[in-house]
Amino acid sequence: MVERRKPIWVKDAIEKVMEWKRLGSIEWVSINECDNRFLGEPLISDHDVPHFDRSPYDGFAIRSEDTLHATSENPVCFEVIDEIGAGQVSPLKVGPFQAIRIMTGAALPQGADSVIMLELVRENLKDNKKTIMIKRKVKTGENVSCKGEDVKKGDHLIQKGSIITPGVKALLATFGYSRVPVIKKPVIGVIATGSELLNVDEPLEHGKIRNSNGYMIESQIIRAGAEVKKYENRADEIESLYTAIETALSECDFIITTGGVSVGDYDYLPEIYKRLGANILFNKIAMRPGSVTTVANIGDKLLFGLSGNPSACYVGFELYVRPIIRYWLHSDTPYLTKAKATLQTDFPKPNPFNRFVRSQIKFVNDRLIVDPVGLDKSNVVSSIAWANCLMVLPGGTRGYKAGDLVDVLLFEDQTGSDEPWTEARKSSKL
Amino acid sequence: MVERRKPIWVKDAIEKVMEWKRLGSIEWVSINECDNRFLGEPLISDHDVPHFDRSPYDGFAIRSEDTLHATSENPVCFEVIDEIGAGQVSPLKVGPFQAIRIMTGAALPQGADSVIMLELVRENLKDNKKTIMIKRKVKTGENVSCKGEDVKKGDHLIQKGSIITPGVKALLATFGYSRVPVIKKPVIGVIATGSELLNVDEPLEHGKIRNSNGYMIESQIIRAGAEVKKYENRADEIESLYTAIETALSECDFIITTGGVSVGDYDYLPEIYKRLGANILFNKIAMRPGSVTTVANIGDKLLFGLSGNPSACYVGFELYVRPIIRYWLHSDTPYLTKAKATLQTDFPKPNPFNRFVRSQIKFVNDRLIVDPVGLDKSNVVSSIAWANCLMVLPGGTRGYKAGDLVDVLLFEDQTGSDEPWTEARKSSKL
Repeated sequence: MVERRKPIWVKDAIEKVMEWKRLGSIEWVSINECDNRFLGEPLISDHDVPHFDRSPYDGFAIRSEDTLHATSENPVCFEVIDEIGAGQVSPLKVGPFQAIRIMTGAALPQGADSVIMLELVRENLKDNKKTIMIKRKVKTGENVSCKGEDVKKGDHLIQKGSIITPGVKALLATFGYSRVPVIKKPVIGVIATGSELLNVDEPLEHGKIRNSNGYMIESQIIRAGAEVKKYENRADEIESLYTAIETALSECDFIITTGGVSVGDYDYLPEIYKRLGANILFNKIAMRPGSVTTVANIGDKLLFGLSGNPSACYVGFELYVRPIIRYWLHSDTPYLTKAKATLQTDFPKPNPFNRFVRSQIKFVNDRLIVDPVGLDKSNVVSSIAWANCLMVLPGGTRGYKAGDLVDVLLFEDQTGSDEPWTEARKSSKL
Repeated sequence: MVERRKPIWVKDAIEKVMEWKRLGSIEWVSINECDNRFLGEPLISDHDVPHFDRSPYDGFAIRSEDTLHATSENPVCFEVIDEIGAGQVSPLKVGPFQAIRIMTGAALPQGADSVIMLELVRENLKDNKKTIMIKRKVKTGENVSCKGEDVKKGDHLIQKGSIITPGVKALLATFGYSRVPVIKKPVIGVIATGSELLNVDEPLEHGKIRNSNGYMIESQIIRAGAEVKKYENRADEIESLYTAIETALSECDFIITTGGVSVGDYDYLPEIYKRLGANILFNKIAMRPGSVTTVANIGDKLLFGLSGNPSACYVGFELYVRPIIRYWLHSDTPYLTKAKATLQTDFPKPNPFNRFVRSQIKFVNDRLIVDPVGLDKSNVVSSIAWANCLMVLPGGTRGYKAGDLVDVLLFEDQTGSDEPWTEARKSSKL
């Protein structure tokens, strides 16, 4: 007798998974190793930037009040008493009608309150004494980058759980983080199952295919920000699969299996969950592809049983595993970035269930447009390679037409969403 | 006397740089190491996918013609002669009114042309003989994933120079690439210059700042897909700087320096270019920030002299260095992804020159909206950390208003553009 499984909504499935979310702890890494890691502490400035008034140009530091009556007709003469490059500090104080030659980035010397650009003065050298003539009024603070104008001490600059981009790294360097607090990556074990699986370096055989899900999932794990622990592919053989999962449970924070979760005679995952004493959160979801996606927990560890079909496996990862990883990394937007896009071609198939179609978005001017790519079947692999998003067509809807506005979930955008895509449940069936 | 430099257009600057573009060569890496690398060969399928007709469901493989007269009233009986799991191949041929139990993913046995799902048959066991009753007509090819339906042998699947995403990796695994041809990364030397620079682990001093440009650029290099070769910061001291650049020239494909390219008394890069016999492509661009960006070549090696100001440095990298890296990686879209977005707030400053404003785009429904972030000054670092795009305001325009449509260049989007942003040159001044 075929087991009849009760499907649940996508929203409920995500919620059940997220009940087991956990926050990762902090580790410190060299600033040279922090790219694309997730910040383990908020970045709060411990000093003003700049931390001294400085000159943004090459010129002369002066007292603005001395230029009050300077005009083309009545230029005012200043004595040049020193010269400072960036990084140098003058021991002298600028007095009345005195100037100090200053380079871009150098600290404004004492006494001065403004800088006149090099191009605007005439320099003279007489009797080894350097002077400049100024022909216009200079305002107080003119050409000065003021202490704290970029960042003020105590500013909350970057929040914990942010991804470290080149710009964030520049700030980390500015604030002296030679070592950077980042969230320790969760370790995700990957076990591909199926007696049909060949290793990537094996020649094809009739009835067998090369394992692509394992590599794909590992790559999705890396993109989500976690660490992969790779296990050997397993044939549909209950004892060796059980042992592999037991080992992975002791070595990983989460485990992903691909294949073996359906109701076929060689689908051993349900039996293994039972033996392990795992609690099944769900084993059927009202979605296509990926309806057989199963998630179970043992203690605080989640076992993600993804479909053996590549497209279904891919979608299952992005909807259910990715948010668990991103939450662990302290992201407050752990779900795929959501947007809307205009469909470019008809999609006539009706959608009895929520359908997640591998698609490609493009920017046309300020608009997002979307097109399905490849064949919309759960066992297809090519469509995944061409897609950069999922187009979501809610269950209970008929076909869609070119020009319709549809929901899209973006794979590569790092912004994320604070809420997952969730169905309206109006007319869809479970 | 201050040197008067002749600025050139952004478009011309990019063209002059791209005259020196070079294509990288191929290296082979393990499939486990290929994430985010650029594919060194087009991926052309060497076999159909699937490479055999297979069952997408659990069910029974039969000859459809035998169901021609099957109805609820007159169910047809089939003898079950074998059972095959995924990866197994039956030695038997399905004859008239025979069926073979078949699991998801298994090859369709000889003789059969269709599969009926498990849920639709009634199984019987009598005298150790298994039979099934079928109550409906099954069409030829029903529930069969046909050989080649996903990919046909000889299909051009992924072009050379594509970035390896999880989906591309799945295809690579499918086609047996245990080792993957990727483009060897160009090696980019980074030398931050300036006597005001402290190392990241040094305490602040009056008049000095920590080197942030070096770390930022390294991170931009990694994001663009190249390899960093890090050199020590250099004070504004001509001999040591000259030696550092000479060393870097012998060890790197391209060199980036930050700082020292302006016309100040301690800006030694122009003198060093002269000593090295470098050919200066340009040393002033009609843009803000980054007008001092200088590029020179020695033989086929480019020396990128970026500004010492963080925002100017960042923008200079993305506009001029990134396309050289992406072209090297065989991308046919080496420039930043271009789009348009609706400005959310007034930007009243007039734009005598092309202005590249650090900004943040967001998706609102199917529209891109953009907001400038932080202070729009070339020496500011915080705005870079908050930005995910550049808003481009062409020179010769007055201020912009909320609701205006503006050009944006996206930092994190990997799609890229086949053409750079280029100015219209109508009313902008050089």
